Amino acid sequence: MLSEFDLIKQYFARPRAGRATLGIGDDCALLTPAPGLQTAISSDMLVEGRHFFAGADARKLGHKSLAVNLSDLAAMGARPVAFTLALALPAAERGWLAGFADGLFALADAHGCELIGGDTTKGPLNICITVFGELAPGEALRRAAARAGDDIWISGTLGDARLALAGYRAELALDAASLEQAAARMHTPTPRLALGTALARAGLAHAAIDISDGLTGDLGHILAASRVGATLDVDALPAGPALARQPLELRRRFTAAGGDDYELCFTAPAGARAAILALAAGAATPVTRVGRIDAAPGLRLVDGAARPLDLQLEGFDHFKS
Amino acid sequence: MLSEFDLIKQYFARPRAGRATLGIGDDCALLTPAPGLQTAISSDMLVEGRHFFAGADARKLGHKSLAVNLSDLAAMGARPVAFTLALALPAAERGWLAGFADGLFALADAHGCELIGGDTTKGPLNICITVFGELAPGEALRRAAARAGDDIWISGTLGDARLALAGYRAELALDAASLEQAAARMHTPTPRLALGTALARAGLAHAAIDISDGLTGDLGHILAASRVGATLDVDALPAGPALARQPLELRRRFTAAGGDDYELCFTAPAGARAAILALAAGAATPVTRVGRIDAAPGLRLVDGAARPLDLQLEGFDHFKS
Repeated sequence: MLSEFDLIKQYFARPRAGRATLGIGDDCALLTPAPGLQTAISSDMLVEGRHFFAGADARKLGHKSLAVNLSDLAAMGARPVAFTLALALPAAERGWLAGFADGLFALADAHGCELIGGDTTKGPLNICITVFGELAPGEALRRAAARAGDDIWISGTLGDARLALAGYRAELALDAASLEQAAARMHTPTPRLALGTALARAGLAHAAIDISDGLTGDLGHILAASRVGATLDVDALPAGPALARQPLELRRRFTAAGGDDYELCFTAPAGARAAILALAAGAATPVTRVGRIDAAPGLRLVDGAARPLDLQLEGFDHFKS
Repeated sequence: MLSEFDLIKQYFARPRAGRATLGIGDDCALLTPAPGLQTAISSDMLVEGRHFFAGADARKLGHKSLAVNLSDLAAMGARPVAFTLALALPAAERGWLAGFADGLFALADAHGCELIGGDTTKGPLNICITVFGELAPGEALRRAAARAGDDIWISGTLGDARLALAGYRAELALDAASLEQAAARMHTPTPRLALGTALARAGLAHAAIDISDGLTGDLGHILAASRVGATLDVDALPAGPALARQPLELRRRFTAAGGDDYELCFTAPAGARAAILALAAGAATPVTRVGRIDAAPGLRLVDGAARPLDLQLEGFDHFKS
């Protein structure tokens, strides 16, 4: 029988290699902030049956739990430093723990992000990660910073995670190859850290957010915080490779409001277009221009011919669905 | 129907009054660390049916959720700055949310600790708080710093929270007045911040830990980290007022290994006794000397006459009980 302390020791305590002054094993961890830099902090909680299916692959879950948090750092333009992990588990199963830790640390190590503390307890499966990044004052890409006339940009592609969900739920018939391709986006999202931190450092972007609840809903947070509106060219939204093979109406709905994408949506002045494309190429991250910020409030969806588009969309709300 | 965003806005977003550069409402919060200071970080997860009873009073739960985290800062000697709150709720009930927020913010405000972000989701009730404190390099009261010859000190009193649990579980017959008195300790623990931060600033204490899983278990962490042993005078342990009226054997077991006490256990050189008593008086926190750190490994329990005491004790382990 694995005790709480053995569990931490065997699966989560590792030789110290990160930036923290003190890691796992005391009442608190200690970070010594780099002189002159700010600390960016974000916290996400993943609940079984809500953010992932019961019985989900532990390795992928370890990856995703950290990825969604790193995605918040990317949207702020902050460089990852460390994270805490609080974990409620129905039982301490060695196979699950080993897989979860593998997926978690593979992603953490890829970004030099050190596990510095947390908590473990028995309970319905729940994973709560709090992540710490750093950036220089004035660098942060804030939701409130969009300006009328800005371009709206999207990283990568949208909608494949939502397509996978539709496949699992049998909302539509999906061939096995498409489901597998789409499912990879749902289970192992890529936090866009290279792009987000480069944009922040270069001072090219105004506002940014990561797309977790669906583009229109998340863009809506930028619009509300910035007190502006926007026109979004839905047909310009880049669909994921599996979704790209689906009918137009589904492509439009799932790219515009699919959710679980973990791409960045950011705004930048039109004069920065060439610089942004060069920066994105340097970050090995495709970006697409998909609309513009307007002075007039409200979000206007248009098709590829700039005609108003009436899509029935709803962003994800945990207490409505 | 209360949406996720309304829930945050109505119950958790407040006029900015704290130290954070950016609070709730963006992808990340931003803290600007005070120049030259370190950041202490701790995370605790509270699960319904495990850390509190189903149907527990929401206001008390708000207090306790933050109190157990502040207790970790106290044990490190760090001054509270801010915290994040991740909350899984079966439903968004207004009465519960108002009570929880009341209890949470009353304690947060008393310590100038600002809520800067977090997450809300539907799910089995789970409260995960990550707290941030600050302290000067070298001030931290670390578990690994105990030295042979140190006195062992305890703040406040022990065992009443465990007595309340025994009463609720009907492990023993407890009169209503005793249960009420003991239950107050279980539901609304007092984080010993005044004492912990004063000890750290004065440089009087060596090691410290907060007593959450029972004194002998938590002291054991100090001993293991410091590679020392200890002799503990069980009859010197100050029992809570309700427990003090119980038989000797129960007093001994519940003070030595009750759990849920959130008092501080710290070690300090014998030469510092008078200074510690003066400092504790200044922090309005009673302290009691209960043993000494030995070079020989192991924890030796003795009675008031220094005779070896054979108590059947077991610290709390989430995956064993």
